[in-house]
Amino acid sequence: MAAHENTMNDKNRENPMRDRSIRGAIAFVTAALLGGCAATTSMQADAPLTIARQGSFFVGGHDVQSDTLSVLPAYAPSGTISVEQMYVHYQVPVSPDLLSLVFIHGCCLTGKTWESTPDGRMGWDEFFVRKGHPVYVIDQVARGRSAVDPSVINAAKAGKTPPTQLPPVFSAGHESAWAIFRFGPEYPKVFPGMQFPLEAQAEFWRQMVADWSATLPTPNPTVPALSELARTLKSTVLISHSQSGIYPFQVAALNRDGVAGLVSIEPAACPAADGDLKPYVGLPILVLWGDYVDLAPRWAPRLKACREFVRAANVAGGKAELVLLGDVGMPGHSHMLMQDRESLKIADWLASWIATHVTR
Amino acid sequence: MAAHENTMNDKNRENPMRDRSIRGAIAFVTAALLGGCAATTSMQADAPLTIARQGSFFVGGHDVQSDTLSVLPAYAPSGTISVEQMYVHYQVPVSPDLLSLVFIHGCCLTGKTWESTPDGRMGWDEFFVRKGHPVYVIDQVARGRSAVDPSVINAAKAGKTPPTQLPPVFSAGHESAWAIFRFGPEYPKVFPGMQFPLEAQAEFWRQMVADWSATLPTPNPTVPALSELARTLKSTVLISHSQSGIYPFQVAALNRDGVAGLVSIEPAACPAADGDLKPYVGLPILVLWGDYVDLAPRWAPRLKACREFVRAANVAGGKAELVLLGDVGMPGHSHMLMQDRESLKIADWLASWIATHVTR
Repeated sequence: MAAHENTMNDKNRENPMRDRSIRGAIAFVTAALLGGCAATTSMQADAPLTIARQGSFFVGGHDVQSDTLSVLPAYAPSGTISVEQMYVHYQVPVSPDLLSLVFIHGCCLTGKTWESTPDGRMGWDEFFVRKGHPVYVIDQVARGRSAVDPSVINAAKAGKTPPTQLPPVFSAGHESAWAIFRFGPEYPKVFPGMQFPLEAQAEFWRQMVADWSATLPTPNPTVPALSELARTLKSTVLISHSQSGIYPFQVAALNRDGVAGLVSIEPAACPAADGDLKPYVGLPILVLWGDYVDLAPRWAPRLKACREFVRAANVAGGKAELVLLGDVGMPGHSHMLMQDRESLKIADWLASWIATHVTR
Repeated sequence: MAAHENTMNDKNRENPMRDRSIRGAIAFVTAALLGGCAATTSMQADAPLTIARQGSFFVGGHDVQSDTLSVLPAYAPSGTISVEQMYVHYQVPVSPDLLSLVFIHGCCLTGKTWESTPDGRMGWDEFFVRKGHPVYVIDQVARGRSAVDPSVINAAKAGKTPPTQLPPVFSAGHESAWAIFRFGPEYPKVFPGMQFPLEAQAEFWRQMVADWSATLPTPNPTVPALSELARTLKSTVLISHSQSGIYPFQVAALNRDGVAGLVSIEPAACPAADGDLKPYVGLPILVLWGDYVDLAPRWAPRLKACREFVRAANVAGGKAELVLLGDVGMPGHSHMLMQDRESLKIADWLASWIATHVTR
């Protein structure tokens, strides 16, 4: 690969503008081409992968009519578009002996969260297929490959509605995201022993996208779409992260059909401990956390509230568990624990938890 | 499956609001779960798929500072975000004897274009991996999993910039898209013998997303990102569609390194016949079209201009070819020919064309 990199560097000299991003591309494509999946578990992670089938489809969605789809002459302003559908990509192993899993990303991210890590290691999407689980990875409604409606932008641009009615679409900047993702207490300080692969930080920032969730109703339309998906799959474990942490609970409250268990990783919110806990009776629930939570003003109260929910749910007949990874021998994990250095060790632990706690 | 559908229908009665989208979900997930890939070619399309590796990464991108990332209290308005990166998903077969292929979607769509068809059959992404090609599927810059910058929206919402400066982001409505995709001369008329699976039309509409391409510089930043990717892959065939039809030509004009051949499917534009043709000398080029082109006022002049380009490129020492699928025994194809009923027959023909025309 050295000769290849030299060639690339020669090109960089001709076109220095692209130098930085080429270095990034080399790092990740090199990992991809050379198959950089360290076998950190009992599984032969760099062996070929055989699957029965793969593909993608949408769940949910409805049609809306608009007269401000476009301000460009090449595209008509009036017409019908489909919105609030949820993109789903799936892979089914040859012997799908285990429960299907649905992976739901968090704020300002897409289904990419569960694919290759920023430093080019295997993502959880592939790991759990190799374990024998059918895996479904979604893009939340109005994110990634799930469409947004640009009508309000064009209406404001054309002067038909005041700009104050523009959608509150936001992006999280690197500096504030740093603390939210708990790489350290504040940008660019790092928590001691923190396990996120910071040498690939730029690749992680490229995963982040603008977030339209504040423009959507409550519950987020992703929730009924997940309910449909669960019912179609008949028996599945919903695995959410951060902003989407509450979604599996909302799905269970909507309809328990098809929901075999819930895993909520570092949720922005758990259900209220003094709320209606009947939807969770008898349902295996895991609320999973990384490290440094009590050092983060944004996260410490959320952990506390989740502890209270788990306690109350169990009093009400639930089968809920809250686990800090440090308490099971894996300290140092950030909010993006599915991408941390020990991501596959955590995945292996989670696979065991599911195997021992959730039945069809 | 009948019992399963009955169960779903019972649920629908309880919640009729979701009836329509559940029917859609059933159709596509049923196809997925039962493995609905008809073996339309010599390949055993419903046999298990074995690959050496898969994953995803980004190419390109740069950081920008903004003071209007957010108008929400939970997210800071000021900070740095990464924009103009290009998402790439890849799968590499166990014996990658053949050239790598990069698939580039068109207007108002994402990389989903090349995945499962609307009626649940195998997508070209999987077909070409099964053929032995390493396959790279991208989301164009500012589309799908490749981020957009929401700063201008928030600046207008906060009154810092006039709404006339809002980005010209647009969606194509179903009614106008119908003629653009040449399902028929106008919505909802259908061309006789047209091969798009109209019974799954609603699933196709769900693939469409808002398009920010008019907000981007020329050439689209996807073009230098594709050039980086091609150079990293060393030898690849760039396969574009519609709006992105011109991109492979622009990549070749930027830098021929890594570009083994170009396939432009129904391009919105070919290079000018009286322009600089040196970038294309000796390069295998295929410009591929479906049917009904001369019946479509939007497309007929584009076909004519591409014919003129191909003629001129060959006079200048090129190896360009323009093919209408009807002329090689496959009539009736729409603009979305990679999703038409004979999509895998077309793919098989294309695989043969690449094998006989393109060398590393």
